[in-house]
Amino acid sequence: MKVEIIAVGSEILLGQITNTNATFISQQLAQIGANVYYHTVVGDNPNRLKDAIEIAEKRADVVLLTGGLGPTKDDMTKETIAAHLGLTLTMNEEALQSIEAYFKRAKRTMTDNNKKQALVFEGSTVLPNRTGMAPGMAVEVNEVHYVLLPGPPHEMQPMLVDEAIPYLHAKSGVDEIITSKVLKFYGVGEAELEHLVQPILARQSNPTIAPLATADGVTLRITAKAETIEKANMLIHPVEAEIREVVGEFIYGTDHDTLSSKALALLKEQHATIAAAESLTAGMFMAELGREPGVSAALLGGVVVYNERAKIEQLGVSEQLLQTYGIVSSECAASLAVKVREKFNSTYGIGITGAAGPTPHDGQKAGTVWIGIAKEEEVPMTYQLQLSGARNTNRDRSVKFALYYLIQQLAQQNEKGSE
Amino acid sequence: MKVEIIAVGSEILLGQITNTNATFISQQLAQIGANVYYHTVVGDNPNRLKDAIEIAEKRADVVLLTGGLGPTKDDMTKETIAAHLGLTLTMNEEALQSIEAYFKRAKRTMTDNNKKQALVFEGSTVLPNRTGMAPGMAVEVNEVHYVLLPGPPHEMQPMLVDEAIPYLHAKSGVDEIITSKVLKFYGVGEAELEHLVQPILARQSNPTIAPLATADGVTLRITAKAETIEKANMLIHPVEAEIREVVGEFIYGTDHDTLSSKALALLKEQHATIAAAESLTAGMFMAELGREPGVSAALLGGVVVYNERAKIEQLGVSEQLLQTYGIVSSECAASLAVKVREKFNSTYGIGITGAAGPTPHDGQKAGTVWIGIAKEEEVPMTYQLQLSGARNTNRDRSVKFALYYLIQQLAQQNEKGSE
Repeated sequence: MKVEIIAVGSEILLGQITNTNATFISQQLAQIGANVYYHTVVGDNPNRLKDAIEIAEKRADVVLLTGGLGPTKDDMTKETIAAHLGLTLTMNEEALQSIEAYFKRAKRTMTDNNKKQALVFEGSTVLPNRTGMAPGMAVEVNEVHYVLLPGPPHEMQPMLVDEAIPYLHAKSGVDEIITSKVLKFYGVGEAELEHLVQPILARQSNPTIAPLATADGVTLRITAKAETIEKANMLIHPVEAEIREVVGEFIYGTDHDTLSSKALALLKEQHATIAAAESLTAGMFMAELGREPGVSAALLGGVVVYNERAKIEQLGVSEQLLQTYGIVSSECAASLAVKVREKFNSTYGIGITGAAGPTPHDGQKAGTVWIGIAKEEEVPMTYQLQLSGARNTNRDRSVKFALYYLIQQLAQQNEKGSE
Repeated sequence: MKVEIIAVGSEILLGQITNTNATFISQQLAQIGANVYYHTVVGDNPNRLKDAIEIAEKRADVVLLTGGLGPTKDDMTKETIAAHLGLTLTMNEEALQSIEAYFKRAKRTMTDNNKKQALVFEGSTVLPNRTGMAPGMAVEVNEVHYVLLPGPPHEMQPMLVDEAIPYLHAKSGVDEIITSKVLKFYGVGEAELEHLVQPILARQSNPTIAPLATADGVTLRITAKAETIEKANMLIHPVEAEIREVVGEFIYGTDHDTLSSKALALLKEQHATIAAAESLTAGMFMAELGREPGVSAALLGGVVVYNERAKIEQLGVSEQLLQTYGIVSSECAASLAVKVREKFNSTYGIGITGAAGPTPHDGQKAGTVWIGIAKEEEVPMTYQLQLSGARNTNRDRSVKFALYYLIQQLAQQNEKGSE
């Protein structure tokens, strides 16, 4: 199944917003084995939109459009396609009621132009909009499927996943279920990971294994096709086990896990608390953990000690230690972790110190970072990073490495506990 | 001048990366008055790339391509266009030397496939790559300009701004200079700002005024066309003054200013230091300021006091105050600001407390936030926010409002100082 994604909106062509819809839609289509050969962006102009559709329908089986379903004069995707394909627009009562209910809930008066949003192609499959007003629709004309979705991502995404993808999957004539498991890695590069799992990768056709580099580390997506979800999972399971055997040390989670969600989940599991002392990251580690709802059960707080004075005065790091080993040192990271743990009386303490860049810091070159993790009654662990990015990339990666090492520590603790 | 942007790369069609290059290029082209009518994305496939180019050259004066200039087999943009247009590829000695120097600096051995990167169209304008290896190029065939840029944003962006935009501007036959000044606003919505400046907006044709909502507030871009930069600036100046008269209170900066860069610049100007006590934002305020190089001159540090105990024990906020007024209160925000300022002996202290959501906190509904700003020997100021976003949107906006109010305080201080 060949798909072309057409995003409609002059604001994209002006560079005011980025076409993230195409990214999301492409990811979802990849899951059902559809091939996306082109992305097109066209402005709110009926002639150019018609031209784009005429090109797309010659080279694709599915023309998937987003945007231009709203109530304003600029919104003309439906009207353009109806004229082009000779379709009739008809009022969809269900959608109209849903729009009326939407205005009632928001305690706003519904103006007449909003009714336009409930117009759909006669004979089309209507895709309900559960997070907004304009419904989507899908229709087949001359063996081409036209799928229309709204533009706002929070409306488009659930409609795509819940309505359009199952519709297209059914139409694709592929009887099989496709399911994936994503393994999430940190502390290993994409090239190195690919190299390590190459023998496993090379052997696979079902499931397939696809690596992807993201800001949160590398992922391996294991995708299996089978008649049932159970059979697909049975194909995935042994391959996952084999991958874990080879590179399990770098795996921090699966599927929807993030470094911070995983760290928090493990902390909560152990009824453990944490405090952090941050230098170059200046609060980013705590802020990142703080993204997770319910974090107050585990994150007691911490200190940002940006300069040497603050480290000594606020945390009681020994002046002599700093003079002997320097601010960017294993000893300083360990001391930060121990002192902040004591200060907040938490189970774990984290210390992060280093030279973010662009200039060296305390004699250490930009990108040198030390992370300390302290636990009550245990010798603190420290980890050195040698990063080579720009200032804020280095800070960001320092936080992610700190979360990754914390997850490792917490996972080991779990293993100890279960022995 | 009609431009079509073609991004080449299968990873975009797979949804592995987003086509942010098209966004950036569109923004830059808008500045020279070029019209972008289409964005196209095509994979690393010579036939489909050729098809896309054939379509583009019929509907655009400029076909601007990014991606596919690298050393691997997948990189075939140059080869495809050369074959399509009947151009010869020839080794560019300058580019080759630059690539060789690149490998030397990185202390890596240069493999033969890297030489391919120095091939350019015979007779084309070569666009040097100052941040990477593959040069870009521009060539005119049958009244269509073909501009080829590399794919990695850190290589593409400087090449576009420094080489391709001036090239296209010269070719556009537009004699006029186009220049812009951007005014940056916070604490006011796009619709409200547009409403307030509507009388000024309505009158303008040169300069034009374009509002844009961004994550860092709303911007107004004032763009003037004139024979010289001086004349263009003379057109901009009175309009800017008029806007400042009406909505100046919401302006925090201009052009490349961000909330954090502006706050830091004002702190440094006054040789002032700052410390922060953060609750719901859990370090985000300090982390945001910490993005700026040279921040250690102003940011002494601070504490994250996520729960009530930490506020009392770590900062000495009075237990009775918290019992009387609650954690989410003007009094608590003021006390956090005062106490952290004292603790770090800084010029300014910032306190941020509130209910991030999704659930209420200490009896206050999600989105209620108090910001306190303390200065030595002055009564602390407090500001209330009533936000309605999701948890992390609320946290993010709390930080930005804190920076915005801090900028206001610092600017007032400057005015006092100059009286």
